[in-house]
Amino acid sequence: MTNQTVAVLGLGAMGSAVAARLRDTGHATVVWNRTAARTAPHAQAGSTAAATAAEAVTAADTVLVVLFDHASVREHLDPLASELKGRTVVNLTTTTPEQARSTAAWAAEHGLTYLDGAIMATPDMIGTPVSRLLYSGNRDAYDRARAVLETLGAADYEGEDAGLASLKDMALLTAMYQLFSGFLQAAAMMRTVGVPAADTAGEVRGWLGALLPHLDHFGAEIDRGGFDPARGQDVEFTRAAIGSLIAAARGQGISAGLLEPLMRHLDELAATGRGGADWISVIDQLPIE
Amino acid sequence: MTNQTVAVLGLGAMGSAVAARLRDTGHATVVWNRTAARTAPHAQAGSTAAATAAEAVTAADTVLVVLFDHASVREHLDPLASELKGRTVVNLTTTTPEQARSTAAWAAEHGLTYLDGAIMATPDMIGTPVSRLLYSGNRDAYDRARAVLETLGAADYEGEDAGLASLKDMALLTAMYQLFSGFLQAAAMMRTVGVPAADTAGEVRGWLGALLPHLDHFGAEIDRGGFDPARGQDVEFTRAAIGSLIAAARGQGISAGLLEPLMRHLDELAATGRGGADWISVIDQLPIE
Ligand SMILES: NC(=O)c1ccc[n+]([C@@H]2O[C@H](COP(=O)([O-])OP(=O)(O)OC[C@H]3O[C@@H](n4cnc5c(N)ncnc54)[C@H](OP(=O)(O)O)[C@@H]3O)[C@@H](O)[C@H]2O)c1
Ligand SMILES: NC(=O)c1ccc[n+]([C@@H]2O[C@H](COP(=O)([O-])OP(=O)(O)OC[C@H]3O[C@@H](n4cnc5c(N)ncnc54)[C@H](OP(=O)(O)O)[C@@H]3O)[C@@H](O)[C@H]2O)c1
Repeated sequence: MTNQTVAVLGLGAMGSAVAARLRDTGHATVVWNRTAARTAPHAQAGSTAAATAAEAVTAADTVLVVLFDHASVREHLDPLASELKGRTVVNLTTTTPEQARSTAAWAAEHGLTYLDGAIMATPDMIGTPVSRLLYSGNRDAYDRARAVLETLGAADYEGEDAGLASLKDMALLTAMYQLFSGFLQAAAMMRTVGVPAADTAGEVRGWLGALLPHLDHFGAEIDRGGFDPARGQDVEFTRAAIGSLIAAARGQGISAGLLEPLMRHLDELAATGRGGADWISVIDQLPIE
Repeated sequence: MTNQTVAVLGLGAMGSAVAARLRDTGHATVVWNRTAARTAPHAQAGSTAAATAAEAVTAADTVLVVLFDHASVREHLDPLASELKGRTVVNLTTTTPEQARSTAAWAAEHGLTYLDGAIMATPDMIGTPVSRLLYSGNRDAYDRARAVLETLGAADYEGEDAGLASLKDMALLTAMYQLFSGFLQAAAMMRTVGVPAADTAGEVRGWLGALLPHLDHFGAEIDRGGFDPARGQDVEFTRAAIGSLIAAARGQGISAGLLEPLMRHLDELAATGRGGADWISVIDQLPIE
């Protein structure tokens, strides 16, 4: 099935990029968007504009859903359970793992072939070598849609649990926002002495780029367990270090709130006799009892 | 003055690396350490072991201080004000900007030529091309010590304010701990579905490596001011995204505490009518009123 007809539900920035890429790779496309006007440029470029989601779905082998959020997905898919039967449904909308599992459970209930996806790319990256999408859930759906999905970017299948793609997406986005907010904190500190944020960006980029390989060491230590600080820094050293970072920020009139949760976890470790452990044992404080 | 005699006060992991590098580059070195036994390998390698800090200082043109913290520095330098006169004193011990400024003020009071430094390297990196040290304070001290300092790594002079080197050090370390703790959060989330931390490390490393160039864009936007979201994501979008990340973590039984300070800043922006601004305007929430 290389020349499938693909329905794209949702023509926002991302859905539009997806539809364009499908056309560029020779797929027949049927597009639908809540605000109908947004289908016009796609119709002009060779897609078929559908007046309703039902019309788009029934014309297609594979249905790609690129709506705003979980609620908008369920609002439009739930009434179409019978129309979706026999077609492959791939939901690329960003959702939490629990939302993905809930949509997968609904699909299973109705005997649908449903795959959940997560897009690790911006619209301009779709179809380029740096584009990557994660998928999880029904393996059969993945195999059937694969040729279509691979036109969008690397298509990694994460496993049968429909929440896995979202979970990895959320884990990576968490790391991203921590990185970005760390930069904002650094830039705020340096602005107090007149250093432009662009200069701090260059500094932080070079510094963190050099530190990224340390993550492999941390990963290996975590998997090994034990948290022997022989090859790392212990909790007490790190508490002192973070204490200095907090004092340095406040000394410049900058809030140190971003660092406080980490400090609290280090304090918990110290208070429970683990001050001599590798500081990355903070990871053991994260699960909620 | 290329063949200066250099005193190294403190022979911990870092002081030892500094002393070794100075010997390797042909400098006469006089070493002192609180626990005298640690001088033995250095004496064997060609350094002169001094019995007291005063003895080390009076033998040297340049004095490098590599002690534990601000308190240990002041404990040993304060009594030596007259011995330090006429020599160049460079303090490489990690301190906050305010501590650096306080030591610089003390030095100025006593007419000393004092430079504050910050080491952006681990001991094994000293003297290699990836080693970098920051300096600030007395420009004359920097110029006099420069030939010595450049043997340790790139020697960047940040400016006359003695706190600048420490401030940049602290800003970069803040960004580092945010990056590392973001990885720990991601690894904790992925461990709940059995993904080894080493696998998450590889994922996060690749993902964040690709995102680092975004910092340049953020820096330019911050300097431009205005926080027009046309080229970024707005506060409301980011609030929804962080809300999902918090829900995703909790759904897997993982604390979302690390993300809460960022969420609070986004909430503050939304509550004060700035929900439509670029989310990086969070930086304006960081200065303490
Ligand atoms: N943009 C990115 O960089 C990026 C990256 C990764 C993942 N994603 C994800 O991709 C999805 C789409 O993002 P986007 O950038 O395309 O967003 P967008 O430009 O804001 O477009 C949102 C789309 O959702 C539709 N929509 C919203 N609420 C709806 C409802 N209740 N019923 C029907 N349609 C509704 C909008 O239709 P109208 O035209 O009628 O408003 C529009 O087509 C999101 O889940 C996003 O998280 C985006
Ligand atoms: N190691 C790194 O990767 C690194 C990186 C950047 C910056 N730094 C900074 O470099 C400095 C030294 O670090 P390090 O790694 O060498 O630490 P270290 O291995 O723990 O050594 C600490 C040194 O400080 C001495 N010391 C501690 N308290 C003292 C006191 N009250 N009076 C006199 N001496 C005292 C110790 O002497 P004894 O032998 O008598 O205990 C020892 O020589 C610190 O400020 C650190 O933050 C280190």
